[in-house]
Amino acid sequence: MSGRLFVVGLGPGNPDQVTPQANAAVAAAKFFYGYKPYLDRLQLRLDQTAVSSDNREEISRAKAALAKASEGETVAVVSGGDPGVFAMAAAVCEAIEAGPEAWRDIDIEIVPGVTAMLAVAARIGAPLGHDFCAISLSDNLKPWEVVERRLAAASEAGFVIALYNPISKARPWQLGKAFEHLRKTLPAETIVIFGRAAGRPDERIETFSLGDVDAGKADMATCIIIGSMETRAIPRGGRHPLIYTPRSLASQ
Amino acid sequence: MSGRLFVVGLGPGNPDQVTPQANAAVAAAKFFYGYKPYLDRLQLRLDQTAVSSDNREEISRAKAALAKASEGETVAVVSGGDPGVFAMAAAVCEAIEAGPEAWRDIDIEIVPGVTAMLAVAARIGAPLGHDFCAISLSDNLKPWEVVERRLAAASEAGFVIALYNPISKARPWQLGKAFEHLRKTLPAETIVIFGRAAGRPDERIETFSLGDVDAGKADMATCIIIGSMETRAIPRGGRHPLIYTPRSLASQ
Repeated sequence: MSGRLFVVGLGPGNPDQVTPQANAAVAAAKFFYGYKPYLDRLQLRLDQTAVSSDNREEISRAKAALAKASEGETVAVVSGGDPGVFAMAAAVCEAIEAGPEAWRDIDIEIVPGVTAMLAVAARIGAPLGHDFCAISLSDNLKPWEVVERRLAAASEAGFVIALYNPISKARPWQLGKAFEHLRKTLPAETIVIFGRAAGRPDERIETFSLGDVDAGKADMATCIIIGSMETRAIPRGGRHPLIYTPRSLASQ
Repeated sequence: MSGRLFVVGLGPGNPDQVTPQANAAVAAAKFFYGYKPYLDRLQLRLDQTAVSSDNREEISRAKAALAKASEGETVAVVSGGDPGVFAMAAAVCEAIEAGPEAWRDIDIEIVPGVTAMLAVAARIGAPLGHDFCAISLSDNLKPWEVVERRLAAASEAGFVIALYNPISKARPWQLGKAFEHLRKTLPAETIVIFGRAAGRPDERIETFSLGDVDAGKADMATCIIIGSMETRAIPRGGRHPLIYTPRSLASQ
């Protein structure tokens, strides 16, 4: 008996940024698996059950959800933002590949969402207006040398860089080290955006220059966007400047 | 008298993937500016006016919308997907920077959306499950050498690559050339995904290998995802394989 598994992106956290498709998946599911702060966003009915787990337990969470679905149940794994961007969709795929053959018969529906970098960018202008990349700064799952190599390649080639998972209690130094590394290839005046809780009441969006940005001001819920050499600010009296990356290259 | 300008992301095209925030912006605006296929998605009231323009007229469209907003009107510029990803948000910023001082007083609200690569990825698994980049293949606004340099940098550093604007009548050879270029750094068996109209009734999602992919099968509405050396397929009897990029590095 093969059930159904939704992998749902709840967006950045503002209910106005949750798609109807995500709400329909949440309404259809009976069992919910996720990191507690994401589960807390849901208003579940009495016949729906939530099982929360810590944010570093993605694989065991994916396995538990797949095991429940394989009993014939309708199950949802929830992520903030988009589940395909440094979130649960890849963990579910990994668990399916390594798991019992029967899990391949489960009906998997991945529901995309507005990922953090898009929400942060929208609040400040269009910093992702030209070629960009997204890098997870977590070295739990890849060596730090790979992170440094990717930061160098992306900045040298002129990509705007969005950093996910910038810092945590267990990974306190990586973000500072990343800025240090980027200072080798990018000028000190490069614009850096710290976006936290975009679109939520406790939103905090701040801009710095690469030369004096302080990694200590970020936390694990911050999405960081580092401009390219083309990224610029439009001053506006009494308002936050608009930050954007032009669609065309002035130099190169 | 300064008005209000929404820059709205309508998502990939399925109404279930439009956020309530985007619908609210559409309900609030009186004048709409956009590429006709995006305007055609709206169900406007009799008191709302749509002004369509061709898809290569972003700057003149942005200027017209800003001029209308500066008369005190509430205006919406609409994009498919997310307006900050190779779409209208950067064009609006460019027009503001180059335009009359008064345009800086216009209340700008950018409404993010589900961008094409997220919608395509969700339909097939989690190909963007690890570090990735997005590159516009249009060389209308940047020299082709820059595109090639970025393709090389991204593929050598292990990024999954999403290509936007892959092909058009005016740009018929670029995608084939990009594949040719990528074959220098990536193995022939690298997974390539062509995603068209994700989530819409005419959806077409196909996978190929880099060695034998045919650029001629793409059109301007196709979003292309090129896996890294880590991207893999999980065969599933009778269903499309799940394609995903693991969160951890097997090799490197």
